[in-house]
Amino acid sequence: CNYSSTYICFHFVNAFPLILLDLLPAKNGEEATMQFLLELVDILTNYVRKSFDRSTKVLDFHHPHQLLEGMEGFNLELSDQPESLEQILVDCRDTLKYGVRTGHPRFFNQLSTGLDIIGLAGEWLTSTANTNMFTYEIAPVFVLMEQLTLKKMREIIGWPSGEGDGIFSPGGAISNMYSVMIARYKYFPEVKTKGMSAAPRLVLFTSEHSHYSIKKAGAALGFGSENVVLLSTDERGRVIPADLEAKILDVKQKGYHPLFVNATAGSTVYGAFDPINEIADICEKYNMWLHVDGAWGGGLLMSRKHRHKFSGVERANSVTWNPHKMMGVPLQCSAILVREKGILAGCNSMCAGYLFQPDKQYDVSYDTGDKAIQCGRHVDIFKFWLMWKAKGTIGFEQHIDKCLDLSQYLYDKIRNREGYEMVFDGVPQHTNVCFWYIPPSLRGMEHNSKEYREKLHKVAPNIKAMMMESGTTMVGYQPQGQKVNFFRMVISNPAALQSDIDFLIDEIERLGRDL
Amino acid sequence: CNYSSTYICFHFVNAFPLILLDLLPAKNGEEATMQFLLELVDILTNYVRKSFDRSTKVLDFHHPHQLLEGMEGFNLELSDQPESLEQILVDCRDTLKYGVRTGHPRFFNQLSTGLDIIGLAGEWLTSTANTNMFTYEIAPVFVLMEQLTLKKMREIIGWPSGEGDGIFSPGGAISNMYSVMIARYKYFPEVKTKGMSAAPRLVLFTSEHSHYSIKKAGAALGFGSENVVLLSTDERGRVIPADLEAKILDVKQKGYHPLFVNATAGSTVYGAFDPINEIADICEKYNMWLHVDGAWGGGLLMSRKHRHKFSGVERANSVTWNPHKMMGVPLQCSAILVREKGILAGCNSMCAGYLFQPDKQYDVSYDTGDKAIQCGRHVDIFKFWLMWKAKGTIGFEQHIDKCLDLSQYLYDKIRNREGYEMVFDGVPQHTNVCFWYIPPSLRGMEHNSKEYREKLHKVAPNIKAMMMESGTTMVGYQPQGQKVNFFRMVISNPAALQSDIDFLIDEIERLGRDL
Repeated sequence: CNYSSTYICFHFVNAFPLILLDLLPAKNGEEATMQFLLELVDILTNYVRKSFDRSTKVLDFHHPHQLLEGMEGFNLELSDQPESLEQILVDCRDTLKYGVRTGHPRFFNQLSTGLDIIGLAGEWLTSTANTNMFTYEIAPVFVLMEQLTLKKMREIIGWPSGEGDGIFSPGGAISNMYSVMIARYKYFPEVKTKGMSAAPRLVLFTSEHSHYSIKKAGAALGFGSENVVLLSTDERGRVIPADLEAKILDVKQKGYHPLFVNATAGSTVYGAFDPINEIADICEKYNMWLHVDGAWGGGLLMSRKHRHKFSGVERANSVTWNPHKMMGVPLQCSAILVREKGILAGCNSMCAGYLFQPDKQYDVSYDTGDKAIQCGRHVDIFKFWLMWKAKGTIGFEQHIDKCLDLSQYLYDKIRNREGYEMVFDGVPQHTNVCFWYIPPSLRGMEHNSKEYREKLHKVAPNIKAMMMESGTTMVGYQPQGQKVNFFRMVISNPAALQSDIDFLIDEIERLGRDL
Repeated sequence: CNYSSTYICFHFVNAFPLILLDLLPAKNGEEATMQFLLELVDILTNYVRKSFDRSTKVLDFHHPHQLLEGMEGFNLELSDQPESLEQILVDCRDTLKYGVRTGHPRFFNQLSTGLDIIGLAGEWLTSTANTNMFTYEIAPVFVLMEQLTLKKMREIIGWPSGEGDGIFSPGGAISNMYSVMIARYKYFPEVKTKGMSAAPRLVLFTSEHSHYSIKKAGAALGFGSENVVLLSTDERGRVIPADLEAKILDVKQKGYHPLFVNATAGSTVYGAFDPINEIADICEKYNMWLHVDGAWGGGLLMSRKHRHKFSGVERANSVTWNPHKMMGVPLQCSAILVREKGILAGCNSMCAGYLFQPDKQYDVSYDTGDKAIQCGRHVDIFKFWLMWKAKGTIGFEQHIDKCLDLSQYLYDKIRNREGYEMVFDGVPQHTNVCFWYIPPSLRGMEHNSKEYREKLHKVAPNIKAMMMESGTTMVGYQPQGQKVNFFRMVISNPAALQSDIDFLIDEIERLGRDL
């Protein structure tokens, strides 16, 4: 009984062995159901508590074949016959045991990190309500929350009175896909009915540093990935506007139609912000759709100190913004926001009368299903709405500012430190700090030699592998263009402190010094 | 203190007012965090308990403007300043209060109904783990569970050794979209890079009774909705194979390319199963992709008694199957299953080195990100895996058989009952029972008269509106083709009993008798 002394006892007065058929909807199943759910909650709250404890490992790594063979009785195979509920609870414990603690203060591996307690509460409630966003009829409160929250986000973007359109989608890649679809519908609405052959050859433009989802959307939606033109960037990973204009002219000269520019606000690796105003000028000049992919950077819009990096965003036609990244909302929570009202429905509606009846007793303009490419749609709004209520706009701002301060702390700490080399110069625009750790054995070598590059390329993967084996912390690495593997540190974890940054650096040096 | 006498007391020994900044990751935040989460769990478990209680209303209906104006202090607006945690808990209570109890034994409104306690536990754990399916690195257990479960589903479909491909997607519409994308990639792989202009005019075929997501996919992916040819059906809503072949020949004669046929296994309104074997013969003859949309019907594959309705499914190239519908898994849980191994990656991969590093220490073939059209992907597998563990295959079978028995009970009850008319004759193939209720005032009228049809068209919406106002039960209605509005009863709710079917009929008659 873990917490009895302080506040709660999980031992049951009338404990009895749990049987599936005793649970609701069984007659008189309330007691067994409560017992089962509370035993589960005991497992979960223990997990939460330990995830925030720095003496807990971030992960207990095992290879796929090890987990598949069955770890200490943890059997992943499914069978015809049921397991006991006791075993189900053991399975739950094991699932958490062999997973990765993404809420751990030293988990820095992804753009989405941390475990917000209010967000978690929101998710628990969402799954208990277990409904679907497609109609007001079965999700009245959630539909209204989505509408109000989207309006608030549009106000923050700077569109007059927060007017416009938008929807929560299952992630940034789908949100970006929406933007391409809407742009096509705006300029060539007949493609919806006649297909791509009704339009000239359409070309999309995006940074070589941008997220691959723009290219994926180009492939999926029938443009072809070759018609996604990659733009050159400066040394900080920001699009060079002159390169955009030159490439637009080149495309036009070939007789193709430049349709769409994606400006990234917070690139995946460098955290770079493309110059939106200069790109918007070019989009206006050539009558093109401007999308801003703020999946990662979006949170900075909440910060009075950092939102200037989005300067010009109000000129965009659409914006992707993932609260599940920088704002710490649990996965999944991504919004596509659009300046023109009603265009999502125009683009996507099929008016399926059997699903969206016009003759209901309420105002059916609140039904959202027909403007989505989905039919059923998960309730992603509630956890975000609840966090906003609990923190206020200022709470998100404080979180953003703190993470950017921490990233500056890391940058200041390592930029002149022996054994480190920065991938690009200058204070990071976002929390991305990109660097090489150079083990002592490489420090004297000629940096341009093939041998040095080959050896350095292996350093980050080697350190990362040892890090995962020891389970102490996690950070990402990748190559970029001609640059060999380097660490990309990102900070979105609300649990992280300066001491965790120090720990990461110590750990990299401990694991890497003998490479 | 709701349950203290029996098993647990939620009052805290050291109760103190909750403050957001006391919660984890705050130093010594464990106690406040536990208190907050347990108070939330108290709200949630109460909600669950009441949802199964037939004396509770299914919903407490309010119009959008009423909720937007603020019901008894329930304020949906977001603000700059935080709310107290006490208020957050009140907001949670209110959110549930003004929502719809989709787990209530008398909620029949959607294909997804019911609240499975094991599934709910699975969702609570999933949100506590808060990770992402794109790499084994951060979701080792969930990635393996997905792989094993997809294999099991492919075995049940009947593909040799369960070999093939597949992924869980954010719903049946996206799963169906995948099928169209893969079909196009299989026959015209160059479209991925060059766009639709690299292929002849491609045509998709699907039943006029099929889900609108096929048409949506056609519009989104650049085929154009006019290139989605709708197939005629028999009086039960099943595709007529001869009509398919005639339309293929017509398309070929026009010089277009017939690419893809969708056979629906369990249509949305009638619950119809298209004759898969006959359609497969035609697909083989014309070298076309055969997709089976079993989003709604898929669960019947688990039933030895009913899986014959899927006869021929093993000949399909791809299958959509939504465990979140007939199998009672919480939303969202939808799989796209593909017979050809590796084709999802071929179709969708962009090989973003910065996200999917090939030089990790584990077998990176377990990373799933690059075969999806998403980047981040919610963990939809765990709740399903856990339910399968707890019920066994036989538990799902029992649930399916029971729901179909209940639908036969309803059918037998009303088919000769005064005041009812069936939309089509014969025992339903799925749990869909489609019928008109004819109020006494209409019973003597000429059925073919315009006046009768106009009046009858309003009966179901009127009854439904009164049903929602009184909050006693919920069932769907819609028109179909030339048929005026009728009720579509579907049974997927594990809590439903014969007495609930009786209640529904009584309620329709009570509310409708004076219309």
